[in-house]
Amino acid sequence: MSRDAIVVVGATGAVGREALAILADRGVPSSRVIAAASSAGRRVMYGDGELAVKALAAELFDAASLAIFAADAETARVMAPLAVERGCTVIDNSAAFRLHPRVPLVVPEVNGDSLRTEHRLIANPNCSAAILVTALEPLRAAFGVASITLATYQAVSGAGAAAIDELYTQCRGVLAGEPAAPSVFHEPCAFNVFSHDSPVDPETGLNGEEAKIIAEARRIWSLPDLPISPVCLRVPVVRSHTQVIDVTLAAAATEADIRSAIAAAPGVALIDDRAANRFPTPLKATGRDEVLVGRVRRDPSGDPRRWSLIVCGDQLRKGAALNAIQIAERLGKV
Amino acid sequence: MSRDAIVVVGATGAVGREALAILADRGVPSSRVIAAASSAGRRVMYGDGELAVKALAAELFDAASLAIFAADAETARVMAPLAVERGCTVIDNSAAFRLHPRVPLVVPEVNGDSLRTEHRLIANPNCSAAILVTALEPLRAAFGVASITLATYQAVSGAGAAAIDELYTQCRGVLAGEPAAPSVFHEPCAFNVFSHDSPVDPETGLNGEEAKIIAEARRIWSLPDLPISPVCLRVPVVRSHTQVIDVTLAAAATEADIRSAIAAAPGVALIDDRAANRFPTPLKATGRDEVLVGRVRRDPSGDPRRWSLIVCGDQLRKGAALNAIQIAERLGKV
Repeated sequence: MSRDAIVVVGATGAVGREALAILADRGVPSSRVIAAASSAGRRVMYGDGELAVKALAAELFDAASLAIFAADAETARVMAPLAVERGCTVIDNSAAFRLHPRVPLVVPEVNGDSLRTEHRLIANPNCSAAILVTALEPLRAAFGVASITLATYQAVSGAGAAAIDELYTQCRGVLAGEPAAPSVFHEPCAFNVFSHDSPVDPETGLNGEEAKIIAEARRIWSLPDLPISPVCLRVPVVRSHTQVIDVTLAAAATEADIRSAIAAAPGVALIDDRAANRFPTPLKATGRDEVLVGRVRRDPSGDPRRWSLIVCGDQLRKGAALNAIQIAERLGKV
Repeated sequence: MSRDAIVVVGATGAVGREALAILADRGVPSSRVIAAASSAGRRVMYGDGELAVKALAAELFDAASLAIFAADAETARVMAPLAVERGCTVIDNSAAFRLHPRVPLVVPEVNGDSLRTEHRLIANPNCSAAILVTALEPLRAAFGVASITLATYQAVSGAGAAAIDELYTQCRGVLAGEPAAPSVFHEPCAFNVFSHDSPVDPETGLNGEEAKIIAEARRIWSLPDLPISPVCLRVPVVRSHTQVIDVTLAAAATEADIRSAIAAAPGVALIDDRAANRFPTPLKATGRDEVLVGRVRRDPSGDPRRWSLIVCGDQLRKGAALNAIQIAERLGKV
């Protein structure tokens, strides 16, 4: 095998499987793809075929020029430096390196120009942060952003495949008249809404998801002091995150300005039909590459700098696997 | 029958049934209660027994001193004045009279002092407005409120019993691998989130629910210029509405101040355990009289006037039937 293989680490997880599906869609032959996970022996889908999953080991990276890490932060901390040492460019989906000053944190539509071929380790943002900055980038570029308030409606699949099983199992139980028994989550997820399952900082009151959104959006935009106030909740949705965003722009805009900026931008799609009451939903966003933006509405005060939006993005695609592969494409590695 | 009967109009609907359940809990004997609906012949539960539903007619009000209307606005516009003419005090749950200058719009914990025994027609607020003002009243009273931004996570039962059936039917279908077929709502409701089903004003972009929240909260608080920016969505929850509220107070507060104010106030309960990640959820709020308030968090900017909260309230109780009966109790009519 020549040195052009692509290793997908964490290939049996939700993000890993999505990365394999996107690589297959891109026409990457299965002979170039190595599926790796903590234990060998399983098989995963690849296009019309399958790949045998190999046990994660440093030697796998010797044949590869690219490694997409879709594993936990601890695995990334240990294995990503080994992959770089052995000549791979690594794109890591975990939180391990996202705030490291020498590791770029990239959403191609936003700060893709910061990528250099000498970058050997690139961090992929948190899913909610990626969806937020992709949705607002057209407005930031055109008018500037002064502050952001957002409430999230996050799908359970952000917590992994076991969370999807828990949602379905609890729904079946409730429909059969049985009580829901939480296991993955700290609250019942069927027919319920609850504050995000990441730990809450006892001092600031921010949970982990909210802290990531703030730190990562600021870093991606190079706006270290941007005021961002997120409140993150889970909803009984399988896939794709929704956000209600209230943004104060630096300059005044009209509704037509806002719509034009969104309609012209890469990576987003405008869905905004007031007469038909058709706006973004997580079902519409699922499986799509674009982040859906709509329900564009000026603040009821009439302030032409303040706007609200409903945004939905597939957190396994733009929020994870797709963004990672877009980074690799920018670097000519796919 | 002496003139002390209570007529519940719309007794077969979700709010009407809840009103009957609360009256029975309060120990009102079934002999005092007249269940009325557009068509006679059905039976509804009342405590351990049942009531025969009578066809709605003006004569029913002759025996009554109180009528609780849990019907649509058109029925209220026609029948409520007839009930008043015939000597009843009417508490109307519909939107028909909420903004009428001579009809008080009341949440007892907030503006119950404005009630006078000579008031013969009193309007009960929209469910989301009632939950919002009940939750924030302790903070308004202690610190003043300068502006409010909120995102709602509204239960399907706000759209009636058929919407609950639709959610359950669609969930069963999706779990069996069938596509969801929307009927009551304009979007699939199972495992989805969507902008509220009320019509969207083509000019302002506000939907009906958002316009009601703004107008009614301002009126209940007698703050006609208060800036309020709500964005309302439905979630796959059967009962109880959730709100993420970002409030700017008129005066600075500490976290301890906020918690104390909420803990001491009537009609609300504080659920706010950061270490255990326990906060309000719609399942916890269902069937409770109090609006649950928690996830008290200072804005990440550190501004001591800006706070976020997660609020959950049973929209069939405090958002409708319970509030109506609390008004009647204030007037000595129950």
